[in-house]
Amino acid sequence: MRLPIGCAVRELTTHKDPRGDLTEIFRDEWESGIEPVQWNFVRSQPNVLRGVHVHVVHSDYLVCLDGTLVLGLADVRPESPTHGMSTTVTLKGSKMQAALIPPGVAHGFHFPEPSTLCYSVSHYWNTVDEIGCRWDDPALGFDWQVREPALSPRDTTAGTAAEMTRQYLAVREQLRAGRD
Amino acid sequence: MRLPIGCAVRELTTHKDPRGDLTEIFRDEWESGIEPVQWNFVRSQPNVLRGVHVHVVHSDYLVCLDGTLVLGLADVRPESPTHGMSTTVTLKGSKMQAALIPPGVAHGFHFPEPSTLCYSVSHYWNTVDEIGCRWDDPALGFDWQVREPALSPRDTTAGTAAEMTRQYLAVREQLRAGRD
Repeated sequence: MRLPIGCAVRELTTHKDPRGDLTEIFRDEWESGIEPVQWNFVRSQPNVLRGVHVHVVHSDYLVCLDGTLVLGLADVRPESPTHGMSTTVTLKGSKMQAALIPPGVAHGFHFPEPSTLCYSVSHYWNTVDEIGCRWDDPALGFDWQVREPALSPRDTTAGTAAEMTRQYLAVREQLRAGRD
Repeated sequence: MRLPIGCAVRELTTHKDPRGDLTEIFRDEWESGIEPVQWNFVRSQPNVLRGVHVHVVHSDYLVCLDGTLVLGLADVRPESPTHGMSTTVTLKGSKMQAALIPPGVAHGFHFPEPSTLCYSVSHYWNTVDEIGCRWDDPALGFDWQVREPALSPRDTTAGTAAEMTRQYLAVREQLRAGRD
């Protein structure tokens, strides 16, 4: 599977027995690319689409626990060797995998059926780090195979992918300048 | 709610909207009493009972994501102000709470319906730190209201609560001696 550089999909091992099953979804000692500060649990109705969003600061590490997550990934980092690459990856609760999304990789989550997701972040939520665009902007290059998904008001009124990238770069510059 | 000292139950906040909901299940900055090194996800069939177990080293921090968890807690630490206290706490996916279980508090998990659980541990799994007893030993003082639960082979053949406590104290002594 080809992914934007810095993204990763890890196969998780599910141990089954007559009682049910157990899956280790995260270990500190794994080279997962993230040191989580927070874990969230999200339930989604069928045909919900969350995103598209991109972050300047924080990484996301996510596991679909139940149902199906179609994860769209698009690299908007101008300096990246995989700049412009976009792909979709399907994660399922029936065969668990963990996906890492670094800063600068725009992402959207589509749930074709009722689904649950557990995810961690490397930094606490910050409005400055929440930048988004319309999920169906053709410039993203996603083949969602989705019609009229349920969106949040914010995602419904989001701008273009080009505007998102400009904002991503502007915030990145501000944060870098602030660190100097 | 009275709990063995060091145990805690935290109310979690679920943010609902038409797409579904989101719950922060853990933040590093919370005074949760644990620094997780690992997160696990567990699915259980109805009438499964896991335990009773006690740990010398590691703490558990757990959230019932779906279904119902009846959590039995019994304090076997001789020096504890709540030594001998036992209680059951019901956690539900429909109103999420996080429970912290420190070392020395024996615990069992009963799932009356199909249920899922996410939990973290403060130390990696170690066979030395897995000490258990029969879930229905009257000395535990649990009012499980359960008949013939599904157990693992290990939990089925476990010994008495008195033997578990002796083993807990012996391992604790060994580990303390090893640190001196």
